[in-house]
Amino acid sequence: MTRARFQTFEDPSHREGAARIAALRQAMKETGLDGFVVPRADEHQSEYVPPNAERLAWLTGFTGSAGTAVILADHAALVVDGRYTLQAPEQVETSVITPVQLAKTNVEAWIGENLRQGAVLGYDPWLHTAEGVAKLEKAARKAGARIAPVSDNPVDAVWAGRPSSPAGAVVVHPLDLAGVTVEAKLRRIREALGRGGCDALVISDPHNLAWAFNLRGSDIAHTPLALGYAIVPRTGRAALYLTSTALEPTLRDALSSSTDIAGRTGFAEALSAVCAGGARIRLDSATGAMALKNLVDEAGGTVDLGPDPITLMKAVKNEAEIAGSRAAHHRDGLAVVRFLAWLSRQAPTGTLTEIAAVEALEAFRAEGGLLRDVSFPTISGSGPNGAIVHYRVTRETDRRVGQGELFLVDSGAQYADGTTDITRTVAVGTPTAEMRDRFTRVLKGHVAIARSVFPEGTTGAQIDSFARAPLWQAGLDFDHGTGHGVGAFLSVHEGPQRIAKIGTTALVPGMILSNEPGYYRPGAYGIRIENLVLVEERAIPGGERPMLGFETLTLAPYDRGLIDVSLLDEAEIAWIDGYHAWVRDALGPALDHETRGWLERATSPLRTGDS
Amino acid sequence: MTRARFQTFEDPSHREGAARIAALRQAMKETGLDGFVVPRADEHQSEYVPPNAERLAWLTGFTGSAGTAVILADHAALVVDGRYTLQAPEQVETSVITPVQLAKTNVEAWIGENLRQGAVLGYDPWLHTAEGVAKLEKAARKAGARIAPVSDNPVDAVWAGRPSSPAGAVVVHPLDLAGVTVEAKLRRIREALGRGGCDALVISDPHNLAWAFNLRGSDIAHTPLALGYAIVPRTGRAALYLTSTALEPTLRDALSSSTDIAGRTGFAEALSAVCAGGARIRLDSATGAMALKNLVDEAGGTVDLGPDPITLMKAVKNEAEIAGSRAAHHRDGLAVVRFLAWLSRQAPTGTLTEIAAVEALEAFRAEGGLLRDVSFPTISGSGPNGAIVHYRVTRETDRRVGQGELFLVDSGAQYADGTTDITRTVAVGTPTAEMRDRFTRVLKGHVAIARSVFPEGTTGAQIDSFARAPLWQAGLDFDHGTGHGVGAFLSVHEGPQRIAKIGTTALVPGMILSNEPGYYRPGAYGIRIENLVLVEERAIPGGERPMLGFETLTLAPYDRGLIDVSLLDEAEIAWIDGYHAWVRDALGPALDHETRGWLERATSPLRTGDS
Repeated sequence: MTRARFQTFEDPSHREGAARIAALRQAMKETGLDGFVVPRADEHQSEYVPPNAERLAWLTGFTGSAGTAVILADHAALVVDGRYTLQAPEQVETSVITPVQLAKTNVEAWIGENLRQGAVLGYDPWLHTAEGVAKLEKAARKAGARIAPVSDNPVDAVWAGRPSSPAGAVVVHPLDLAGVTVEAKLRRIREALGRGGCDALVISDPHNLAWAFNLRGSDIAHTPLALGYAIVPRTGRAALYLTSTALEPTLRDALSSSTDIAGRTGFAEALSAVCAGGARIRLDSATGAMALKNLVDEAGGTVDLGPDPITLMKAVKNEAEIAGSRAAHHRDGLAVVRFLAWLSRQAPTGTLTEIAAVEALEAFRAEGGLLRDVSFPTISGSGPNGAIVHYRVTRETDRRVGQGELFLVDSGAQYADGTTDITRTVAVGTPTAEMRDRFTRVLKGHVAIARSVFPEGTTGAQIDSFARAPLWQAGLDFDHGTGHGVGAFLSVHEGPQRIAKIGTTALVPGMILSNEPGYYRPGAYGIRIENLVLVEERAIPGGERPMLGFETLTLAPYDRGLIDVSLLDEAEIAWIDGYHAWVRDALGPALDHETRGWLERATSPLRTGDS
Repeated sequence: MTRARFQTFEDPSHREGAARIAALRQAMKETGLDGFVVPRADEHQSEYVPPNAERLAWLTGFTGSAGTAVILADHAALVVDGRYTLQAPEQVETSVITPVQLAKTNVEAWIGENLRQGAVLGYDPWLHTAEGVAKLEKAARKAGARIAPVSDNPVDAVWAGRPSSPAGAVVVHPLDLAGVTVEAKLRRIREALGRGGCDALVISDPHNLAWAFNLRGSDIAHTPLALGYAIVPRTGRAALYLTSTALEPTLRDALSSSTDIAGRTGFAEALSAVCAGGARIRLDSATGAMALKNLVDEAGGTVDLGPDPITLMKAVKNEAEIAGSRAAHHRDGLAVVRFLAWLSRQAPTGTLTEIAAVEALEAFRAEGGLLRDVSFPTISGSGPNGAIVHYRVTRETDRRVGQGELFLVDSGAQYADGTTDITRTVAVGTPTAEMRDRFTRVLKGHVAIARSVFPEGTTGAQIDSFARAPLWQAGLDFDHGTGHGVGAFLSVHEGPQRIAKIGTTALVPGMILSNEPGYYRPGAYGIRIENLVLVEERAIPGGERPMLGFETLTLAPYDRGLIDVSLLDEAEIAWIDGYHAWVRDALGPALDHETRGWLERATSPLRTGDS
């Protein structure tokens, strides 16, 4: 099997934390700081950060996707959430930095308790939002101390061999995939600015930059982003300030009628110019750095902190994006089905490993040449590893998939026409009755979401419990949301739409979300079943209200050997059989003879089959 | 049939609004006010207000339970919510005051648009919370005007014959019903004050006063409240300041070890004394008047605005309150079953009216002498009147219940041991297939809530959709919450627990809530099915998490003639049959022969019965 191109299996941690923290302390001392805050963040509050922004990992060895270190002169803490309670102490040198759990404290509380009176706590204003800085300030004040922004990050000063800024290729996202012209998007953005009484929008979220200007980049792994900023004034031309200079020649032409393109270095001056005369500037409260607020304030502008209006526009996919997503899911379904058929042949041999599965799946997706990237590092967890919700296999943790075990594979692809995300859990050998019970309950919740019908205005929070009720009936639950938003050849985690207790955004036709309930038995096995779904209008004969429902986009069979049909009602059986028939009919004709045979068996009706 | 003792059917509106508003304007002018705000509120932000606080109704003729008038020198508005869109224009003289819908504007927006620059808008600081005053202030500032508190309400100055303050009897709520001593309750309150760093609590919510001091009053219709305030210092004796002086002699004895009792007039001075030295005073943000905040501020205290900790304590019923509620529901069930059997005999005669039904139901409840009050005016709506969610029958709107119609009766009782609230919808003659379909969908939602099982920490918002899903599947919904909290011989509408989109409070064992989904076809019929349920722990064999569920408290059959069994699944049928068997077994032995026969037919199993 080919080696994976987009994924590695090396343990990225290191054991140089003591020396590096000592070097940082020296740099702090030289600049008059008693402490320094090191968040896992870049200038855009990105979920995935470029290598040159991996300051927390470089400094401490901790490679989780969220966490904050506070380095004081004589002690230091690394605050992490529940996902990293076990990982953090394994990765950092606990003699120099103490991992603390977010459940027990938080960054501000730790600062309030540990910062000495009169101390000066430094922070990099490009790595914190205005809201984040306000919290730091309150915490320091509580300790009788104060915070101070730095103009040069002291971590960078001591980071020998720090990678340079990303400079990936920036390309046009063609109109047949984007669906709407940049001019039309800018019109909508300006209408939103007008309604909000704003004179200009600063785009600080690279996802929104990519959407608004129909461009895609390659500055970040797994998400086709070009880092940078844009200014959209209510009148006049928009302007793009990109970190990378590797622009596809046609990009300038494509944007020439509406938008100027400049280098990242011209941004601050341009922003100051826009602020002249007290202009009101909308700054994205979620991704806008404190440094941007300072720039606006210093230039005499008025900051209007709130959601970037693009975030909601981008969440609602247009017809071209929906057609692209359907095509991407068809292509991805073929790869996943070939992978699942391969898995069914490999698993009985006893030689299948988690890494081999990742490599095989990526290879199946790469055939045909349309795979741009995986949409996130594949979660390939067998047996007890499947119970670790955010498991990422390394050469150290890799294991052979044993008989009688469950194997959970959560993966996705980036194609030019769409982003995918799918989880299937399969039994290797004969599963236990408990495994089949749990799998079937998770499946019932997954089907309940897929079949749900709800009025316009309903939020994801209002339907989240439909996915949990079959587990609740058995005294079980899962500790993550049921679904997250997904972008159109953009991030596999996109807001604001979500199906979760905290999903307060109304679902709107065109939004794409995951439908992924699970069940995890620590130390034993994990189960998750995930399809992507599209919110659509649902006409109901005799109905009185405008209703919505979901079209399922993902194509791949559920493991029939894990389904306990006796736990399903007629409507659930009908839905599963209908889904399987759709998968078979849609993918079968494009598959080789052997895989087609496997798919036919895998999708045969539950009632007459061999479940 | 006996006349109702606790309910009247007169239309309480009047046509003297023009003269009264003119008189108010004269009084405003004399005190230098350009406008005055008249909310439907008393000094405790009560849901039901005493007659002397019915200023809005006296002034305008509008008798709804919520609304605010803003009287300016040359025009005036009455802002009401969606429930009163039709009622308000019918009750007020639209030539002098304009009803405006809350959906289209709100009090503050109307003020912002209509108050002239430099104007002075008066308000009574006893009738608005601090938060409410802040909103008024912002609105006035926007208009270039200002607000001014009045020490004497100008409505009272012109209200000839204004009733005096309520002075109902205040009695001890006996320990065998209250379950916990006042001393123990005060300990818990003081612990909460300690955790919050407060020196004293001001109790401004009469419900909380009744709970904390194991007393009940009769100052307000339908809810056994004694109006007044209390001060609970962290150390030292608590003190009660009651409006009424009609105290049961044993009350002083019962409270002597912990609490002083004084008249309402001593309260302000006592509060000032507690504030000395900058004490931190918790003031209930929901019911605490702006005037209380002013008192604390002026006395040098520090106001800590937040929820009164009693509100959550009171919501969680203890064993004695739960036993009392079960006894009250048994008693109430007997009355309701006798009423339903009576209804089944009366309805075919064609002479049954809505008012006759109210009178009969109250009479059945009153037999035995334990009925203290109805818990709210009975909603008795036949045919199209059933579609008006908050319908209250008057002699003008009363109608005979016709054949082929639905009849909705929503009612409740106050007994010393518990508060009840029940809705049944029955068919008179033969219902249509659509009526049976809708009724069965409402029943499915009701059963889904009754059967629901959910983990500790789950909020009412997370289960609300279970009640709606069967309607959603048909393109239908209802526009109210699924359930509200209910007190223990206290208010039939109690917070913070609720089953609704906005129900953010975690459900806790001991909370009592209503389970009342509905369906309304305007101009045709209304359906609502309501039981009260008790949150209880639920042990699940093989389960992993602490789970909760509901014990249904209410005893009365559902109309089998309205159930379309073909829409029910086996589990739903089993639940309904089980519920009916429980009702039959619990109530049958205490019923007369004829009613018992009716109950046996009404509760026969769905599978073998004549549905």
